Amino acid sequence: MPGQLVLLRHGQSQWNLENRFTGWVDVDLTDKGRAEARAAGRLLAEEGIHFDVAFTSLLQRAIKTMWLALEELEQPWVDVVRHWRLNERHYGGLQGLDKAETAAKHGEDQVHVWRRSYDIPPPEMAQDDPGHPRFDSRYQHLDARVLPGTESLSLTLDRVLPYWHDAIAPRLKAGETVLVTAHGNSLRALVKYLEGIADDVITGVNIPTGIPQLYTLDKQLNVIESRYLGDADAAEAAAKAVADQAKSK
Amino acid sequence: MPGQLVLLRHGQSQWNLENRFTGWVDVDLTDKGRAEARAAGRLLAEEGIHFDVAFTSLLQRAIKTMWLALEELEQPWVDVVRHWRLNERHYGGLQGLDKAETAAKHGEDQVHVWRRSYDIPPPEMAQDDPGHPRFDSRYQHLDARVLPGTESLSLTLDRVLPYWHDAIAPRLKAGETVLVTAHGNSLRALVKYLEGIADDVITGVNIPTGIPQLYTLDKQLNVIESRYLGDADAAEAAAKAVADQAKSK
Repeated sequence: MPGQLVLLRHGQSQWNLENRFTGWVDVDLTDKGRAEARAAGRLLAEEGIHFDVAFTSLLQRAIKTMWLALEELEQPWVDVVRHWRLNERHYGGLQGLDKAETAAKHGEDQVHVWRRSYDIPPPEMAQDDPGHPRFDSRYQHLDARVLPGTESLSLTLDRVLPYWHDAIAPRLKAGETVLVTAHGNSLRALVKYLEGIADDVITGVNIPTGIPQLYTLDKQLNVIESRYLGDADAAEAAAKAVADQAKSK
Repeated sequence: MPGQLVLLRHGQSQWNLENRFTGWVDVDLTDKGRAEARAAGRLLAEEGIHFDVAFTSLLQRAIKTMWLALEELEQPWVDVVRHWRLNERHYGGLQGLDKAETAAKHGEDQVHVWRRSYDIPPPEMAQDDPGHPRFDSRYQHLDARVLPGTESLSLTLDRVLPYWHDAIAPRLKAGETVLVTAHGNSLRALVKYLEGIADDVITGVNIPTGIPQLYTLDKQLNVIESRYLGDADAAEAAAKAVADQAKSK
């Protein structure tokens, strides 16, 4: 019997608050984000879950969400594995821009395409842009050609899945209980794969922040059941808040 | 300064000798194959190479070639890492068939397409075929959906590259000297990537068995120089022997 899988999206970050495109920019959690992370830990504790291993990205908003959730869960000793493939979707030249201003400038339709099309990436970040991941010390061990300068959701999925297959799935098949704390789009890629969601449907799926999603899987890692922990209305409201962020009002 | 990279294709296997499509079928080396592996070790010794780590597939013809080469090189202590992503291209429903008989039956042109087109895979192996990798214990830790039932060279490359990026390239960038002992097509995928060879050109590149190919790379893992160790004519003859295998005579 394989173990259970919990997906957790990091709590509010400074740029979620400021409504800016974040991507691989390493912004910190806000106080609200920290509170969301702790609340996630309490939901996990209520469920009585014991993790064997926890995976997260190389970005501090996910790592700190993980720490706070594990602390609140009183399982701070769980082995945490960090990997660049779980990073947020790279938002290319949009990173750092205000979402509403970008919508006002390029039109809400164009921004909607960049945010919600499956395979159209935003304009690419220049190779010599000092914000390009190739200049970031945490990615120096990698062949720079694998580091994205922009990504569609489709490209994000191509980048996330090898890590699912080589690192996460084997732990689940071995019967372990696994926590993945990551980002709106790297998690959306996993959800698409796990649930077999179509390209044009997944882009409308909004993953709420700070609300653990618990998957029960069969031996072949097919989904038997999936649900958000805690109050269903709270999860829906949180997902809607994410969906509303792009509006230029 | 990054280290050096050596690619080594396994020596003759039983099915190379019998001229059958092999793919993921785990056939052993022949005596000639074992001799080729030892000869490769001697070429490496003459070059004075010291390896820090060695990567190979989960197939015994590559693993044993690695062992014999390291033994002959007198570096048997080098850490050997095995991974399914370095396996040979999966040959689908052709696995086990005689190459000449298959050419006689389907026509040499069709077999040429299967062997040498970049992105046309052979007919897929049935999911319930007992030879499918999903029934093989060494792949049980994986999500079965990632296990191929057939592969083109393009699909092989998609499967090999994540391992290059996550496991091999970081060791090279850290300045280590790396040996990769693998298969005609998993190595061809790496060569295509490293040298930037076009889709329609790579399919004509034949990698000789048992002759180490030494790459000198710059800090960004771009190729500065590449050469086969030992006698150049021997390498060319070995590559030609591989190219001639598909003929139906």
